[in-house]
Amino acid sequence: MDALRVGIAGLGTVGAEVVRVIERQQRTLAARCGRPIRVVAVTARSKTKKRGLDLRGIAWAKSPLALATDPNIDCFVELIGGAGDPAGPAIEAALAAGKSVVTANKALVAKHGLKLAALAEKHAVALNYEAAVGAAIPVIKTLREGLAGTDIERVYGILNGTCNYILTRMEQEGLSFDACLADAQRLGYAEADPTFDIDGHDTAQKLSILASLAFGTKVSESSVYVEGIRSITPEDLRAADDLGYRVKLLGVAVRTAKGIEQRVHPTMVPKASSIAQVMGVTNAVSIDGDGIAPITLVGAGAGSAATASAVVADIADVARGIRAEPFGRPVAKLAAISKAPMQRHEGGYYLRLLARDHAGTAATIATRLAEQEISIESIVQRHAASTTDGAGTPAKSSPVPVILITYATSEDAVRRAIQAVQRDKVISGRPQVIRIEKN
Amino acid sequence: MDALRVGIAGLGTVGAEVVRVIERQQRTLAARCGRPIRVVAVTARSKTKKRGLDLRGIAWAKSPLALATDPNIDCFVELIGGAGDPAGPAIEAALAAGKSVVTANKALVAKHGLKLAALAEKHAVALNYEAAVGAAIPVIKTLREGLAGTDIERVYGILNGTCNYILTRMEQEGLSFDACLADAQRLGYAEADPTFDIDGHDTAQKLSILASLAFGTKVSESSVYVEGIRSITPEDLRAADDLGYRVKLLGVAVRTAKGIEQRVHPTMVPKASSIAQVMGVTNAVSIDGDGIAPITLVGAGAGSAATASAVVADIADVARGIRAEPFGRPVAKLAAISKAPMQRHEGGYYLRLLARDHAGTAATIATRLAEQEISIESIVQRHAASTTDGAGTPAKSSPVPVILITYATSEDAVRRAIQAVQRDKVISGRPQVIRIEKN
Repeated sequence: MDALRVGIAGLGTVGAEVVRVIERQQRTLAARCGRPIRVVAVTARSKTKKRGLDLRGIAWAKSPLALATDPNIDCFVELIGGAGDPAGPAIEAALAAGKSVVTANKALVAKHGLKLAALAEKHAVALNYEAAVGAAIPVIKTLREGLAGTDIERVYGILNGTCNYILTRMEQEGLSFDACLADAQRLGYAEADPTFDIDGHDTAQKLSILASLAFGTKVSESSVYVEGIRSITPEDLRAADDLGYRVKLLGVAVRTAKGIEQRVHPTMVPKASSIAQVMGVTNAVSIDGDGIAPITLVGAGAGSAATASAVVADIADVARGIRAEPFGRPVAKLAAISKAPMQRHEGGYYLRLLARDHAGTAATIATRLAEQEISIESIVQRHAASTTDGAGTPAKSSPVPVILITYATSEDAVRRAIQAVQRDKVISGRPQVIRIEKN
Repeated sequence: MDALRVGIAGLGTVGAEVVRVIERQQRTLAARCGRPIRVVAVTARSKTKKRGLDLRGIAWAKSPLALATDPNIDCFVELIGGAGDPAGPAIEAALAAGKSVVTANKALVAKHGLKLAALAEKHAVALNYEAAVGAAIPVIKTLREGLAGTDIERVYGILNGTCNYILTRMEQEGLSFDACLADAQRLGYAEADPTFDIDGHDTAQKLSILASLAFGTKVSESSVYVEGIRSITPEDLRAADDLGYRVKLLGVAVRTAKGIEQRVHPTMVPKASSIAQVMGVTNAVSIDGDGIAPITLVGAGAGSAATASAVVADIADVARGIRAEPFGRPVAKLAAISKAPMQRHEGGYYLRLLARDHAGTAATIATRLAEQEISIESIVQRHAASTTDGAGTPAKSSPVPVILITYATSEDAVRRAIQAVQRDKVISGRPQVIRIEKN
């Protein structure tokens, strides 16, 4: 059978690694796919940059768009990144020209995936994007094909290695968020502008893609409730530890009676859960199907080798003629997402409040929670040594942390109770609220 | 597009669940596959047995063989089990008649998979068997497609829920092997004749399938070194715990300079490893690829819902026209396995010996190990209270356990050293040897 002729746009660390893997694995790939895979053309911003690649015999296209429509390629691989130009128009052009497309571009899939999927469907070509979520962890394939017959109830996970690295260091070494972020930046785990990662937007884009595959709904990044990890303190992590939990930035998509909840926020997970074991830059996704125990997939969520592994597997699927609809079913069969409002989220909550005036504050807080029909599982007042007088009673002027764990209640009730407590002026500072996810 | 017409042979708990899932999920499956999936014929030993299934409108075939060649079916689903008749001949007949086959039959795939794959290839039909290893955990798809471009160095895991259940109970409750086995039998986790599970043969069959997919070699169950868990004692699990390990029955397939090692045996794994967290009947598979962090897949390894989930996903792949070679590449391209002999295995070892004569025994053992150039990482002599006299020194007549952890050495060296120690007559009973697997 004829070779699959591949064109690669973008020769950063991932693009260069893809070229190397296809070269190094050429015999294995030919055996697996029944035909050779050959990189015949590439393009990147700089033609002269040193990349340690032997590009002899490989054509240089003058632009991504020119490469996408090059009649000499069968499969267009987009590794430029970014939701806009030039990645988007180049992919559209490739699909319109009847070429299969492989991309690692989560932003583009989250924002314009439906339009691109419709185009791929129209031209009966593949649009594969395994690398966009969890790099080499085969979560897209698992949701799209491996669980095709399973009614999925919840998909959730640790989808951003930067945040998990920061939370792991904070927990294990008692360091502040700022110190860990600075370290992550120094080690190359976090960008100079870390906003996209640490405020949860990267996780939200990935989650919106997983939710579409899991529930057969249209990708909807704007339906995701997003909170990042900036407000998490070492005190929260210590309290979580005492209570049998760890704090992780989770993306959670769950089917509820009120619609589909998609949320990204710091989350307390039981220490014994699979997801709690995931440390450092590792990613993990758990999938709860109807009547079956959760399936958890764990691995590196980033890095050039892991990302290239997923990209090459996607190319191999094209070479083999394996093609599923990009979102697991035709775009016309994807339902509009019925968004469950965050105020109606139900679950347990961790609250950390700074009691301004010791005497009676716990009683006031308990009363306000009771008014909202919130049951308290545990309440602890922490008397730090420095905030007590000689006799061991807290000084009136030093705020004392009050830590509460509630039984399942609603987001709305928690917000109202906290507002009431704030009006009572018995607490100072910003109340800390962390949702609990049972496994 | 026309419906995919499915015939199911075997209506045990899995077969009945597959019929129910296809009925319950018919709209989702039709959307995902672009065509309906319909069970049109079934067969089982008893036609009259109560199964809680509505089989009206579904034809009853007089035998698996008759069903396999029924011109009204497109896809033959074999859920009878067993490597011989009637499962084997029926699958062969179905493939020869140009029908795709889905099976959950690990014994058949391990023993006759190559012959069946060649037949599937010849007729350009699918032979899907995701459910044969790890039930709904998508490990076959991951190795065959998801990591098509990755050079795999090692695949290992907990592939038998019965053994992991027993080891978990023994560890957590300090119970004996026999007590936990009896409980597992009472709960339906172990067969009346548990030999196949607890002596490691079930794990060996599954491992041989994974090794073929990982390394592009011919399935070779007979190349697997197998040891079961009967000899593991609560003392071993306590010692492992003290040393920072857990004991799991692992199947390990690894590419070495001496060939491919395939081995099943009780294994000490570091407590912090992903695989050590896997408790009870859960299964897990870790895959080490060239240059990428391990990918670990965790989930239920058995049960009718989990098994049916994998079977239905395999049927959905047939309906979608997704087809990869059964072992990831054409049978003619699968290499004969170059078996690394177990004597040449290299790794760390845990040894528990019963020192018959206290004085000088540790020195004798250390000398015998040194003669084989084995370095000792730690050595502990356990003086149980009951084996000491009033003054705290061990009585000469009571054997005292000596527990050693070695640095990496060879199986051969360990065997020779133990033989020498036995010849010295300083130990009594059977020496316990547990291999250590680093992650």
